[in-house]
Amino acid sequence: MVKQQRSQETRDHLIEAALASFAQHGYQSSSVEEICRVAGVSKGAFYHHFDSKQAVFLELLEHWLGGLDAGLEAIRAQTPDAATALRQMVQLAGGLSRQAQGNLPLFLDFLSQARLDPQVWQATIDPYRRYQRYFAGLIQSGVDDGSLGPVDSDAAARLLVAVAVGWLLQSVLDPQAADWGAVLEDHIRTLFQGLRGRRG
Amino acid sequence: MVKQQRSQETRDHLIEAALASFAQHGYQSSSVEEICRVAGVSKGAFYHHFDSKQAVFLELLEHWLGGLDAGLEAIRAQTPDAATALRQMVQLAGGLSRQAQGNLPLFLDFLSQARLDPQVWQATIDPYRRYQRYFAGLIQSGVDDGSLGPVDSDAAARLLVAVAVGWLLQSVLDPQAADWGAVLEDHIRTLFQGLRGRRG
Repeated sequence: MVKQQRSQETRDHLIEAALASFAQHGYQSSSVEEICRVAGVSKGAFYHHFDSKQAVFLELLEHWLGGLDAGLEAIRAQTPDAATALRQMVQLAGGLSRQAQGNLPLFLDFLSQARLDPQVWQATIDPYRRYQRYFAGLIQSGVDDGSLGPVDSDAAARLLVAVAVGWLLQSVLDPQAADWGAVLEDHIRTLFQGLRGRRG
Repeated sequence: MVKQQRSQETRDHLIEAALASFAQHGYQSSSVEEICRVAGVSKGAFYHHFDSKQAVFLELLEHWLGGLDAGLEAIRAQTPDAATALRQMVQLAGGLSRQAQGNLPLFLDFLSQARLDPQVWQATIDPYRRYQRYFAGLIQSGVDDGSLGPVDSDAAARLLVAVAVGWLLQSVLDPQAADWGAVLEDHIRTLFQGLRGRRG
């Protein structure tokens, strides 16, 4: 039990150290040596927990997406209709972008690495497609429950993801330029107005 | 004259070699040595033309943006009203994303590097802000000439840039997933429908 606990602590230290190193130097310039030095553990301990630098990088992405998924699910479970859920999800996303010291800058490294590394590409593109399907389903349920008006749910989800990613990039690159939470809410209102206009 | 010509050729070779190296290995993993090897020139010749690997990276960005600017300006000069100009610009952008072997994947390296390197950050964020101003001006002239209907030009430009960047990322990461040119045209139609709806 104590040994298991210590092993979990070592793993947590390694993940924190990797995050710190990637954030400071970028993924490509970070090394397993540097991560071990920051975590204060041996390379042997690193390779006990992870196959490679890439493996811990992918785990960070998974962890971040897991948190986002949990947030979305919690909202959906507590809201009466899809329109309210979407509004609260937009507010959640706006709050995420304010966590400037979080994992968000790593998002840029994932995009850059995705074009060089097939496994990172797969791990980056899967969530894109998954969120597009998720929001298409959510929007369709808003059409069905009458809370969203008649919109094309696939087109809406595709545009929603494009806007969210474009907005996320701008907010990460230029955090001081705007109240990014308010900007996203405004974008999404315009988007649904447009979708209803085209369908209605 | 011959000497000047040869110097320009060497410079062109270096730029092509840098582009090839960045495209294949990514910016961070590319070295001046590798670029010189591919170009078939000495390191002395490299440093005669460029101060650093970063300098040639920045020149590639400038070159790409210069081409984009020239395309936008040529369209504006030949179109009678702002709405027609915007429509043709969207078609131009759609065509750009089909040039899968062009400079576009480098765009991801710029974003990743921008958070690590203040000069790359400045060179990345300036065009963001410049295009936002440019499109705000163009859209305002479309409001004034009556071709676009009454929309908030600043909000419209901000959303236009977010959609364009989000769309560009998705099309670069997942080129086979959709007819990206058609997707962008659809996004922009929805966006203006929404903007008119909110103002009108």
